Amino acid sequence: MSHRLYHVPLSPFCRKVRLVMAEKRLEVELVEERYWDQEPDFLRRNPAGKVPVLRMNGVMMAESQPICEYLEEKHPEPPLLPRDPEGRYEVRRICAWFDDKFHHEVTANLLYERVNKKVMGQGYPESRNVKAGAKAIKYHLDYMAWLLDQRRWLAGDAMTMADFAAAAHLSSLDYISDVDWNRSENVKDWYAKIKSRPAFRGLLADQVPGFPPPPHYADLDF
Amino acid sequence: MSHRLYHVPLSPFCRKVRLVMAEKRLEVELVEERYWDQEPDFLRRNPAGKVPVLRMNGVMMAESQPICEYLEEKHPEPPLLPRDPEGRYEVRRICAWFDDKFHHEVTANLLYERVNKKVMGQGYPESRNVKAGAKAIKYHLDYMAWLLDQRRWLAGDAMTMADFAAAAHLSSLDYISDVDWNRSENVKDWYAKIKSRPAFRGLLADQVPGFPPPPHYADLDF
Repeated sequence: MSHRLYHVPLSPFCRKVRLVMAEKRLEVELVEERYWDQEPDFLRRNPAGKVPVLRMNGVMMAESQPICEYLEEKHPEPPLLPRDPEGRYEVRRICAWFDDKFHHEVTANLLYERVNKKVMGQGYPESRNVKAGAKAIKYHLDYMAWLLDQRRWLAGDAMTMADFAAAAHLSSLDYISDVDWNRSENVKDWYAKIKSRPAFRGLLADQVPGFPPPPHYADLDF
Repeated sequence: MSHRLYHVPLSPFCRKVRLVMAEKRLEVELVEERYWDQEPDFLRRNPAGKVPVLRMNGVMMAESQPICEYLEEKHPEPPLLPRDPEGRYEVRRICAWFDDKFHHEVTANLLYERVNKKVMGQGYPESRNVKAGAKAIKYHLDYMAWLLDQRRWLAGDAMTMADFAAAAHLSSLDYISDVDWNRSENVKDWYAKIKSRPAFRGLLADQVPGFPPPPHYADLDF
């Protein structure tokens, strides 16, 4: 049975699921969902009214982190979580860091102000929020650089779903040129590695009407 | 080695960790943390600047859901996650429902407006937010009632960490009398079952200076 993902292209939570599925070579049909319209059909699929929603084996699933844990348990190859509890904890901590802290401090202030508001017809960016996001992303890039000083990947010496969680946010922000790749060599090298994976190709081909991506967005040599 | 939890008594995220630890009979020393002061010592323990922070076997851990997953992996008895991937997914989905959606729509609007703002010296409750929270909790109680119509516990026929995630939020709100237990018999019966567990005793003994709990808060026959 085919899998189907209801998504929006620049949602970092949808991108995380897309990356995990692509890395595990799970084919999925992508269906764009204007979740903010809160159509009854969509709310039946997910009473929380959010994307991503994954239909897999006839079951509807919501919430990106529980979906990724499920994908890891059902399709363990290649592994995106280590085997030891301490290593698994660290991956989950970093996923939560990006999906909660980075999301509120950076993604909501930059991407949602600049793109989502316009797409949803909710007016203009609040410059105070954009400024706060532009300030916060520096701190987060420095935190990543500090982690990558000690490790090859964000949560340890193997690539995990923590790298995909982070890359999902950063790639959405890169689509609107909001990431300063010159701030840290470490972070740039990390992003170049993850960006060149086959799993990333789908994201690099995304196009949002009214928001053409900058030339460097899909360039592996950015 | 003794375990130590840096927490605040009414934080639902701290309460979830306390309930999981108590259910697994893991003794833990509780240390109240004024995390909003962002003391350098505390930020060294957790750069995200939030509670809970658990010190276990000499390692500092943050983020309640990753901590609970770690506790489950290191101390599997009694199990608070089922064994099948579909069952595990459903538990994690409901944890995310409460820790994300319920938290933003209800807990932040009621508990943080009424209690945290005063404790942190951030002024008076915003009545618009309190109204939004009082409206939203009805919808969430109805969703719980609908789930409990089909299942003995929130995520299935066994008690899991999903029940603790939900009870952590509801117990904090019950401390300020913001839960209408008469709205649904199902939900009240569920809360009576979970409230009477030995793991709940610590929470029922909590006292926040300036906010005495109502008499029904610690009453098992509420």
